[in-house]
Amino acid sequence: MAVFEKVLKDPVHDEIRVDDPWIWRLVNTAAVQRLRRIRQLGTSYLTFHGAEHSRFTHSLGAYETMRRVLDHLRKECGWPEHERDRRLALAAALLHDVGHGPFSHTFESIHPVHHEHWTRRILEEDEELHGILAEMGEDFTAELIAILRKEGGNPYIRQLIASQLDVDRMDYLLRDALHTGVSYGRFELTRLIRSLTLADGAVVLKASGMHTAEQYIFARYFMYTQVYFHPVTVGSDVLVAQVLRRASECWQDGSLTEMPAELTVLLTEDPERVRVEDYLAVDESTLLYAFRRWSQAADPVLSDLARRFLHRRLFTYVVRPEPSPEEWAALRTAARALGFHPDYYICGRTSALSGYVYRGEGITLLLPSGEKTELSRVSKIVRALVPDSEYRLFFPRELLAGGGPQQARIRSILGVGGPGV
Amino acid sequence: MAVFEKVLKDPVHDEIRVDDPWIWRLVNTAAVQRLRRIRQLGTSYLTFHGAEHSRFTHSLGAYETMRRVLDHLRKECGWPEHERDRRLALAAALLHDVGHGPFSHTFESIHPVHHEHWTRRILEEDEELHGILAEMGEDFTAELIAILRKEGGNPYIRQLIASQLDVDRMDYLLRDALHTGVSYGRFELTRLIRSLTLADGAVVLKASGMHTAEQYIFARYFMYTQVYFHPVTVGSDVLVAQVLRRASECWQDGSLTEMPAELTVLLTEDPERVRVEDYLAVDESTLLYAFRRWSQAADPVLSDLARRFLHRRLFTYVVRPEPSPEEWAALRTAARALGFHPDYYICGRTSALSGYVYRGEGITLLLPSGEKTELSRVSKIVRALVPDSEYRLFFPRELLAGGGPQQARIRSILGVGGPGV
Amino acid sequence: MAVFEKVLKDPVHDEIRVDDPWIWRLVNTAAVQRLRRIRQLGTSYLTFHGAEHSRFTHSLGAYETMRRVLDHLRKECGWPEHERDRRLALAAALLHDVGHGPFSHTFESIHPVHHEHWTRRILEEDEELHGILAEMGEDFTAELIAILRKEGGNPYIRQLIASQLDVDRMDYLLRDALHTGVSYGRFELTRLIRSLTLADGAVVLKASGMHTAEQYIFARYFMYTQVYFHPVTVGSDVLVAQVLRRASECWQDGSLTEMPAELTVLLTEDPERVRVEDYLAVDESTLLYAFRRWSQAADPVLSDLARRFLHRRLFTYVVRPEPSPEEWAALRTAARALGFHPDYYICGRTSALSGYVYRGEGITLLLPSGEKTELSRVSKIVRALVPDSEYRLFFPRELLAGGGPQQARIRSILGVGGPGV
Amino acid sequence: MAVFEKVLKDPVHDEIRVDDPWIWRLVNTAAVQRLRRIRQLGTSYLTFHGAEHSRFTHSLGAYETMRRVLDHLRKECGWPEHERDRRLALAAALLHDVGHGPFSHTFESIHPVHHEHWTRRILEEDEELHGILAEMGEDFTAELIAILRKEGGNPYIRQLIASQLDVDRMDYLLRDALHTGVSYGRFELTRLIRSLTLADGAVVLKASGMHTAEQYIFARYFMYTQVYFHPVTVGSDVLVAQVLRRASECWQDGSLTEMPAELTVLLTEDPERVRVEDYLAVDESTLLYAFRRWSQAADPVLSDLARRFLHRRLFTYVVRPEPSPEEWAALRTAARALGFHPDYYICGRTSALSGYVYRGEGITLLLPSGEKTELSRVSKIVRALVPDSEYRLFFPRELLAGGGPQQARIRSILGVGGPGV
Repeated sequence: MAVFEKVLKDPVHDEIRVDDPWIWRLVNTAAVQRLRRIRQLGTSYLTFHGAEHSRFTHSLGAYETMRRVLDHLRKECGWPEHERDRRLALAAALLHDVGHGPFSHTFESIHPVHHEHWTRRILEEDEELHGILAEMGEDFTAELIAILRKEGGNPYIRQLIASQLDVDRMDYLLRDALHTGVSYGRFELTRLIRSLTLADGAVVLKASGMHTAEQYIFARYFMYTQVYFHPVTVGSDVLVAQVLRRASECWQDGSLTEMPAELTVLLTEDPERVRVEDYLAVDESTLLYAFRRWSQAADPVLSDLARRFLHRRLFTYVVRPEPSPEEWAALRTAARALGFHPDYYICGRTSALSGYVYRGEGITLLLPSGEKTELSRVSKIVRALVPDSEYRLFFPRELLAGGGPQQARIRSILGVGGPGV
Repeated sequence: MAVFEKVLKDPVHDEIRVDDPWIWRLVNTAAVQRLRRIRQLGTSYLTFHGAEHSRFTHSLGAYETMRRVLDHLRKECGWPEHERDRRLALAAALLHDVGHGPFSHTFESIHPVHHEHWTRRILEEDEELHGILAEMGEDFTAELIAILRKEGGNPYIRQLIASQLDVDRMDYLLRDALHTGVSYGRFELTRLIRSLTLADGAVVLKASGMHTAEQYIFARYFMYTQVYFHPVTVGSDVLVAQVLRRASECWQDGSLTEMPAELTVLLTEDPERVRVEDYLAVDESTLLYAFRRWSQAADPVLSDLARRFLHRRLFTYVVRPEPSPEEWAALRTAARALGFHPDYYICGRTSALSGYVYRGEGITLLLPSGEKTELSRVSKIVRALVPDSEYRLFFPRELLAGGGPQQARIRSILGVGGPGV
Repeated sequence: MAVFEKVLKDPVHDEIRVDDPWIWRLVNTAAVQRLRRIRQLGTSYLTFHGAEHSRFTHSLGAYETMRRVLDHLRKECGWPEHERDRRLALAAALLHDVGHGPFSHTFESIHPVHHEHWTRRILEEDEELHGILAEMGEDFTAELIAILRKEGGNPYIRQLIASQLDVDRMDYLLRDALHTGVSYGRFELTRLIRSLTLADGAVVLKASGMHTAEQYIFARYFMYTQVYFHPVTVGSDVLVAQVLRRASECWQDGSLTEMPAELTVLLTEDPERVRVEDYLAVDESTLLYAFRRWSQAADPVLSDLARRFLHRRLFTYVVRPEPSPEEWAALRTAARALGFHPDYYICGRTSALSGYVYRGEGITLLLPSGEKTELSRVSKIVRALVPDSEYRLFFPRELLAGGGPQQARIRSILGVGGPGV
Repeated sequence: MAVFEKVLKDPVHDEIRVDDPWIWRLVNTAAVQRLRRIRQLGTSYLTFHGAEHSRFTHSLGAYETMRRVLDHLRKECGWPEHERDRRLALAAALLHDVGHGPFSHTFESIHPVHHEHWTRRILEEDEELHGILAEMGEDFTAELIAILRKEGGNPYIRQLIASQLDVDRMDYLLRDALHTGVSYGRFELTRLIRSLTLADGAVVLKASGMHTAEQYIFARYFMYTQVYFHPVTVGSDVLVAQVLRRASECWQDGSLTEMPAELTVLLTEDPERVRVEDYLAVDESTLLYAFRRWSQAADPVLSDLARRFLHRRLFTYVVRPEPSPEEWAALRTAARALGFHPDYYICGRTSALSGYVYRGEGITLLLPSGEKTELSRVSKIVRALVPDSEYRLFFPRELLAGGGPQQARIRSILGVGGPGV
């Protein structure tokens, strides 16, 4: 029997199995291969040095998780009954991140188009990718886009792609935990998958899986508080945003002469008029290359910010309430006196610290009686994980440390200790 | 007590401890941070998707391994007695890869200067790095360079940095195994370290560690045969080399108009005249950026090769004896007839398949009697791992598959099956 | 240098290091070796087949954890300053379970002497053990006993042996998780240890360790709810207790003729008059041997109960409120009608389900300000883990399943489904 | 759908799935449950303290491995086509160890009946077990016995149960490695299983699996040399054998008055006349109980040997050629002079040290050409693992250490160092 079968070794799932030739063709499109050049955790590698894995490996992992979920549900509930649904689910898992740009969320602050917009356009306009999807039948691409934009399509698949219990989170928690080297993100994936079932048009959890779900919710809580919103990572994101903003401004006022062509298009063109191929031509190597060029730029703010990022001389931070207008004014004056342009060198961010945000759609437990309930109603612990957040102010260490009167002033405003800080 | 201590989470060693402020300063130099942008396994990630880790994380791992080895040896043998030796050993481990360029060994085929040459120049000429090393005392840098070039310096340290049992291999086997997702590279690091001792001016292995060393040698054997010389990886290296070669030629004959400035210097200047800062400015993002630009180049060979690499349409291969001159001529003619320039589209490589190459310096076992012997003399299994190699011919799949007469011709020369290959 | 060093391979800690000859002598006493014949988790292996590890391996693991804690604290805080304290701590960790009997807590229901009573007597009266301890100096044994009975001695050591953050729990959570095959019990041991410090005479946690402590508290929560109080395990304990109770009664009324001599002493003698050597002569092989003999006993209740345990025909259970006196009476009548003596065949148990019981002594966090607070005051999640419990009624499956009127009666009282249950 | 499904957590395979109710009934027979009271690695736990797992857990693991192998082969080759073969294979894996006695191989030295004899008798004569097997159809039990005795039955199943690549070894290498805490025994089980295929009536390995098979062969080599034939373990086996031999002799000459009834039958009755239920009544708790009784016996040799085992005061050993008759005589004389009966206190053993013994039936590789070859013909490394062995002489430490003239004499005969040994 000449059966198609690709087995890829994977550090999280041990093996990733591809039994469909068309999936393998999707994996090998330029649009998917590009994800190898976009890191899964953006700038987190500057905090956790091991976090160097890409969205490509995560996309394979989400695909594999979906494959296992479908195997289980077909055995347990007879769904997916139709090959088309199976294909939709697998393609959705593999392609869910295809619209992401480099340093994803930070990049969106400069190029204000949500990655889901690009997902749609790539699936529709990239010839290679679209060609494969078109073979799957009429409306396949349209339903796939609806699912990935959470606007419609098969409700089971939509839930498995984007909900409290989706294959995206299942893979990334395990993968990010492995690479960062923390043990927080672990939960029993096999058992969690086995606890899934279908009821009344929704993916729900059997009551016997309650504790496994609690473990998964805790994994999320820990990863969010300890890894994803780690202040050093948020500070790195701030730096990336400031570099991009300053470069944009310098380019527009003509004081910057060097900018990769692809980036110029993205940063200056009306987003609707950017061609898909131009968008896909930008990845993290484009940005890193640009940063290195800019580290030699004539503009001192831009070159300094770029060097800080490249050489990991990151901003420091304090956790405190957001400054009052008076405090802001005083901070800005002191920063300026020290030679730091306050627009680029002082920046506040509020970071969420929660793990389980209920927001309307939670995790549904199917009780033995047939009744359904929301996980947080039966789990006191999940209930305790209410949303929380923290305000942090980022700036260069030089604003705080040292013996000068301005630094003393800033320390006094921020309520932190002596010059040796 | 305000003790300096940095603890970094690591997927291989769990924790990496930095107790010396100057080590932390070395880690944060631009020259070391640059290693974040050079992958540890070059193009292996195109074969094993998880192999996305950088030389930076490996450098930290080699440092940590050295730190543990020194802890053990100081307890066991009283060495290093002097702080200077301890510092030399730690710095050597951290900096052993600092001279590497992007896609290291492949890059050297174009820029024919060995990375150890650059190591020396960087340690001597990079102001930031040199400044820190200079504080360690007179001759510190000189001895460090001698150690890293295997030309002199403390013999214990030299051996721990580059020998059959060095901290470089100890870390990379474990790290590469973890990220590729194979289980081959595992061995008992703690026990191996505990088996080390010093005798007659050399680092040797206590006889009780023989089986642990066998396990380590096997790990190497498996990683070399299964991962490092995997034909898909070698084929990817071939592609990188061809892209760089063609780009160089096109640049020199004026048919290529776009080339990152840093790369231009490296590819055209007399190596001795390249400044260290120019060398350090080139990393994998430079090459990936250049490849993407070149994928739009006017030269059809260059743009095709660059696209093949970026979109992972790699060369295929056959394992066979090296072709005879007549076979070569016939292959080239057939390739040319199919529109493939044979200089760039057919390429042979011989890959080593062995794990333990004795080459004069092996692993010394210290027997209970006080006598010393070489590991392969007492271990039949290690003895069996004699050097071996394999010749492979790489070329585009289109040369082989398909119904045309030229393909049939090539298949016949290479002795492979029908058009559906 | 001829340094004493024993390194034992361990599935949890990788290696257990013994650097003190006297510790190695303690390990090799008959009293400690006996713990190899007492399982760490009692009857849990009937629920989780992998839970076959002994109190001996756990004792080594607790010792190793203490060794690492002391290494850390000495580096961090200079304690233990005196060798005597270090020795007390290590000995206490190694010997904390030495008084345990087979199926520990269940056995105490028959032989109503707390294992801490036996710990004291063994340390004082076992010649071999006492001899080694006596060499440690005057009052060493007395202080060790005070610590193990939580009555006095060095407060740091007492806390490290028995508190919310003791080496006992640290080892058993990891070890029990490994052997049962669940992933719940994992937490970052190295990081937790590194978070410990001393303040105002107490072992406290640095604020930076808060999330690690949360993870540890969750690990406990999961292990308690999912493993330690698993109803199948509790049902197995019930069976052991019933066998021992019935055997005692039969022996006393003369209807049982066979009882291992050592057991006879324990079950019939005034505890104060039992000699230490007689107590130490009883382990799980004694009980298993006795159970097998009793499975052939003339008394039908005893032989049936013993066979149920040996061949794993365990009691089933229902979770429900405790029966009212009327319900009890009806249940007993129905059971008797089915030939089951209700005193031995129906048994209720309330099991705790919580993970973090505050009971006066919690986990103290040392804030950066120098203030101290209790973990549950700053961690909402820990606060959510309030004590909880569940009542379960255990009995043979035959009382429930089957078509007879008595079973229907019982099902109706207990509010459970049809005859196919 | 009310589908039967039991999922057991397992430390090696994560989960063990039982989808057949009759398998679950087999698991719950008294004959299989008895294996919980027989350790998988006999006395190895005295060398590697973690090796406390039972033949029961290994039997479940062998069953699970077979289940996965069958899943793969059915998908790959369409075998087993018939439910009967699938059942035979699963039952054979689960029951392959059911005839083992306590301290298996050692016990056979006293009760000279091979465990496979008991396997046959148990399957035929144990009512509970036989009853379940009889439901599987005529001749099912007969073929199962033929397979387990390697005398006939389906050749595929016979090979999967007992050959160089059987499910028995696959499970025990992984399981024993986990519990002893060594990393030697690891290999890629999933990949090894996926490499299996059927050709010409035999289970063979696809050529692509060669390196995986090499890894598995190395795992065996390491486990045999480092764990299974560890001299401390062999010395413990020697001690068990001496205790049993001495007890037998004392019982027969009337100097021993206490012996568990079940043991008396086994040690004195003609094996053919021992009833199956008497054989099954003996497990390790019987022996441990007997050892403890005997540690109080009047016979000084018996009580001393029993105490040595119980309290882990094991024999020491020297590795050397087998003594000559003259050396033996001198050793015996010296031992006797020191008060040690040489028949019981000096004992030599030859231990195999090899991992891959070819003995006619090796591992067959299926080459891409369709030809078959033996693994050792293509793998130099496997070829290097030729059988090897070592002679070791075991005796109490007291014969060697100490200042007396007899010890000096013995040291001189054995060629070992001074009195401080």
